[in-house]
Amino acid sequence: MHLQVYLSGEIHSDWRDQIAQGVQQQNLPVTLSGPITDHDASDNCGVEILGPEPQPFWKDHKGAKINAIRNRTLIEQADVVVVRFGEKYRQWNAAFDAGYAAALGKPIITLHGAEHTHALKEIDAAALAVSDSPEAVVKILAYVIGSQG
Amino acid sequence: MHLQVYLSGEIHSDWRDQIAQGVQQQNLPVTLSGPITDHDASDNCGVEILGPEPQPFWKDHKGAKINAIRNRTLIEQADVVVVRFGEKYRQWNAAFDAGYAAALGKPIITLHGAEHTHALKEIDAAALAVSDSPEAVVKILAYVIGSQG
Amino acid sequence: MHLQVYLSGEIHSDWRDQIAQGVQQQNLPVTLSGPITDHDASDNCGVEILGPEPQPFWKDHKGAKINAIRNRTLIEQADVVVVRFGEKYRQWNAAFDAGYAAALGKPIITLHGAEHTHALKEIDAAALAVSDSPEAVVKILAYVIGSQG
Amino acid sequence: MHLQVYLSGEIHSDWRDQIAQGVQQQNLPVTLSGPITDHDASDNCGVEILGPEPQPFWKDHKGAKINAIRNRTLIEQADVVVVRFGEKYRQWNAAFDAGYAAALGKPIITLHGAEHTHALKEIDAAALAVSDSPEAVVKILAYVIGSQG
Amino acid sequence: MHLQVYLSGEIHSDWRDQIAQGVQQQNLPVTLSGPITDHDASDNCGVEILGPEPQPFWKDHKGAKINAIRNRTLIEQADVVVVRFGEKYRQWNAAFDAGYAAALGKPIITLHGAEHTHALKEIDAAALAVSDSPEAVVKILAYVIGSQG
Amino acid sequence: MHLQVYLSGEIHSDWRDQIAQGVQQQNLPVTLSGPITDHDASDNCGVEILGPEPQPFWKDHKGAKINAIRNRTLIEQADVVVVRFGEKYRQWNAAFDAGYAAALGKPIITLHGAEHTHALKEIDAAALAVSDSPEAVVKILAYVIGSQG
Amino acid sequence: MHLQVYLSGEIHSDWRDQIAQGVQQQNLPVTLSGPITDHDASDNCGVEILGPEPQPFWKDHKGAKINAIRNRTLIEQADVVVVRFGEKYRQWNAAFDAGYAAALGKPIITLHGAEHTHALKEIDAAALAVSDSPEAVVKILAYVIGSQG
Amino acid sequence: MHLQVYLSGEIHSDWRDQIAQGVQQQNLPVTLSGPITDHDASDNCGVEILGPEPQPFWKDHKGAKINAIRNRTLIEQADVVVVRFGEKYRQWNAAFDAGYAAALGKPIITLHGAEHTHALKEIDAAALAVSDSPEAVVKILAYVIGSQG
Repeated sequence: MHLQVYLSGEIHSDWRDQIAQGVQQQNLPVTLSGPITDHDASDNCGVEILGPEPQPFWKDHKGAKINAIRNRTLIEQADVVVVRFGEKYRQWNAAFDAGYAAALGKPIITLHGAEHTHALKEIDAAALAVSDSPEAVVKILAYVIGSQG
Repeated sequence: MHLQVYLSGEIHSDWRDQIAQGVQQQNLPVTLSGPITDHDASDNCGVEILGPEPQPFWKDHKGAKINAIRNRTLIEQADVVVVRFGEKYRQWNAAFDAGYAAALGKPIITLHGAEHTHALKEIDAAALAVSDSPEAVVKILAYVIGSQG
Repeated sequence: MHLQVYLSGEIHSDWRDQIAQGVQQQNLPVTLSGPITDHDASDNCGVEILGPEPQPFWKDHKGAKINAIRNRTLIEQADVVVVRFGEKYRQWNAAFDAGYAAALGKPIITLHGAEHTHALKEIDAAALAVSDSPEAVVKILAYVIGSQG
Repeated sequence: MHLQVYLSGEIHSDWRDQIAQGVQQQNLPVTLSGPITDHDASDNCGVEILGPEPQPFWKDHKGAKINAIRNRTLIEQADVVVVRFGEKYRQWNAAFDAGYAAALGKPIITLHGAEHTHALKEIDAAALAVSDSPEAVVKILAYVIGSQG
Repeated sequence: MHLQVYLSGEIHSDWRDQIAQGVQQQNLPVTLSGPITDHDASDNCGVEILGPEPQPFWKDHKGAKINAIRNRTLIEQADVVVVRFGEKYRQWNAAFDAGYAAALGKPIITLHGAEHTHALKEIDAAALAVSDSPEAVVKILAYVIGSQG
Repeated sequence: MHLQVYLSGEIHSDWRDQIAQGVQQQNLPVTLSGPITDHDASDNCGVEILGPEPQPFWKDHKGAKINAIRNRTLIEQADVVVVRFGEKYRQWNAAFDAGYAAALGKPIITLHGAEHTHALKEIDAAALAVSDSPEAVVKILAYVIGSQG
Repeated sequence: MHLQVYLSGEIHSDWRDQIAQGVQQQNLPVTLSGPITDHDASDNCGVEILGPEPQPFWKDHKGAKINAIRNRTLIEQADVVVVRFGEKYRQWNAAFDAGYAAALGKPIITLHGAEHTHALKEIDAAALAVSDSPEAVVKILAYVIGSQG
Repeated sequence: MHLQVYLSGEIHSDWRDQIAQGVQQQNLPVTLSGPITDHDASDNCGVEILGPEPQPFWKDHKGAKINAIRNRTLIEQADVVVVRFGEKYRQWNAAFDAGYAAALGKPIITLHGAEHTHALKEIDAAALAVSDSPEAVVKILAYVIGSQG
């Protein structure tokens, strides 16, 4: 059993690296993917590739759509979607990804601190696991893969 | 042409009423629906119906799942999903609904102020209209329905 | 909001009647359906309509398939599926219906006593509500329908 | 022709090993998978990974959902689902898996003794083969794969 | 419970009328539909509406496609598909309809004499009932609809 | 049998009116729909409802997306899609609608003159009827509906 | 571009071998598959593996279902389905496979002599190519694969 | 992350080669595909393989359907669909492919000059990127693939 795992959400902490290290240390048959996490590249890709926009709305629009080519493709290919909510920013795109994954029937693992429990209740209710550390996510992946093939 | 329209998101302002009034004034063939907007009822439905929970997480969990029976059913029946982001709170459930609707291929109309343009760029990129007032939403519905049947 | 509700499972107690009475007393916009609950008719429909079978296996087979015409059609049309596990018999068909409904993405409400909590954990994990009385099911339906349309 | 085969159901006898041996002896191009069959690991994975729960219901709930990440993924990837009903326990999860597989249109092979024929009639009616020994399952797989590619 | 029933196959005997009479006599909530059974109209509709064709193949082609507008639409709307094989002609279109209905997951009832049992084994294997008289089909519909709603 | 028919394509001739008259004269159980055919309203709806755009591209973009709310909804609800190609303009939206309908499995009737036969060969190949007059379209609808219900 | 091609239908002539030779001679990236063509094995697999049946109907039934495990799996995996109608027998299973493939949206190539043109008009109307020799089928596959990747 | 990219549309300029060179120079993990671009082969494949047709309509019909075997298969396998509109011809098949891809939910990148902005507004509205040079398409692919796997 090999798993494609999409890591959605927060880009300002090193949680993706921690999961990657855990996966590597245990040599798990897992392929990790996620959005482009270079913040500037992600924000500017639209106007850099397709030409400048005087209005911020359309600059954002062009960039968000190019990122959507990547993100929707990877979510649709994923076996499991991990959605991380950090302490800062609104992170509506993480919640959007969770809804998108839920409607596709993808197993969801949320990753957030206890302070967000009430605000995330709808999303946690759609998840198959609610975790609070990258280590727990790695443990879930290791357990799910098991030893039987 | 009759439209089923689901109104997702903010429950602390009267935007749903404004849309309902606009629909009524123009006598549009539109059926509006949305989540339970009685905040206390929504928060407590799980424990009131299915029994108390000592831990807040499970109280929220039971409630969020009962609300999901309503909300997913109505989103799946909707022809159009309007998603409103207000000025307060994190509103992750609104973003979740938007992602859910997007994956189902439902036309989405977002409704929010310009101050959220950057934070909502991924969701606006998945929408067919980005509006900033309930009046604009009503105008879109009126235009879409047209006069031809 | 009108709900089609399929009532799957136990046929040896009056739980369906209790739900029907609750729905009627509250005048809820709910259409209830379920399998044929006349035990003999259900067991014998295959051989009575299509001719006798010397082997019990094929008698059961013909009957179960005719019942499947009814049950799968109603489950696929349902907005909500209630699955009842009683105290007697193996009730594998109830669990089968729950799996069928889960794969179709139907909201599931289970109805059973606490003594089955461990044995039903996989099915309860796929449900949006776990209830222990017909009254609770009616309350959920009433709450879900709400007063907003 | 290569087949992914999911082996659902009973974990207290060695039927999975017997099928694995048969597949190996005939060198069939078959990949077998199934749930985690270490009973304690399966029952406790939720609380061991995600933290303790004072109530047995929520302990079971967390565990069952983590197992669902594995099981639903493997059932959806499977070409054929074998469902085994043994002599003991209620085995509602096996019946649930059968319903889940049926709704996805997966070919189902049931494996059980004649004493369960009547109780399993709905599930057998949804199966493409009803067998009573691991040997028969292996023979079916060998026949289905054939020699033509 | 109301059923849409599509009656596919043989057009040279009065089996559709017999089913219609049975449905009417029992006042069953059933809507019957089927292909255009006026043989000449069916064969010639293509060239009569869209212009003549010198080659018989294209005459047939244009006609068959116009008939497909009707037949596929009605099969997709049907709750149950009855497929009748008579004594004459090859009736490949009936078998085609059965395959089409099977892939859509529609419950199928076949209707044919015992002399075709071997030749129709694949289609009977995909059916939920194998009947040999219009009366039996009506009895199945009456049973399936039941008295409970 | 009632048919929902979407009339896509050319807005500069009266072909929709001719089909509507034919349907009315024969009292056919057909509901016709189509895009907004008021050219100015269609071109300007985006900026009139959602605010002005200095760049023509974004003006078009906002308008086309609002029109898409209407058109995709009606195409998805349609039983049959008629696509008309006239003598002028590039009419890429008509071809786009045809592709969209084809991927959804909707029966397509094309309507165009012989001069476009070669250029439209891919679209005609995906159609179930290729007609050259509104009268022929009405005849097809009348034939398809038949007299049997 | 690699193609999975399922060869359905007649088992009494060597058309499959001819296609296989053509594919091999041109070294086409094509994987051919098909039903079990050993007539006796196919007819008897049910009773040989799962035990004897006194009634021919159930013998056929058990066999046809085991064959369905193979055939439906391969049709669903196929990129192209070739359906061959020979001169003898009723070949309803070939027509059934064609309908099954059509409902799944698989490209169909029919292969039959001109004498069956009228009887096969519905199936030819659902095909993307109507051929009369194995050579033509190979030519189509070679053309479709092209030289570009 | 590996991408399958289908290049639809104009066959009279070297835009496909430019994209192929860009992909090769950057060593991107991209597999490019597209229709048969040998114009004569594409126009004549139907009659060359399946026999001559006196009427141009049926010659085109047979050819277009054989090409559809290739094109629909590749579009359905694609992760991204690029649609190019050139300066000449009506290119309805490009617009048809865009609609087909849109209904399947495939990310679309359009490629055309500014002079077609208004005529292509519906198709651009369904695209995730609107580009005006093969270089821009390559940049999008390179950005989307990123460096993270």
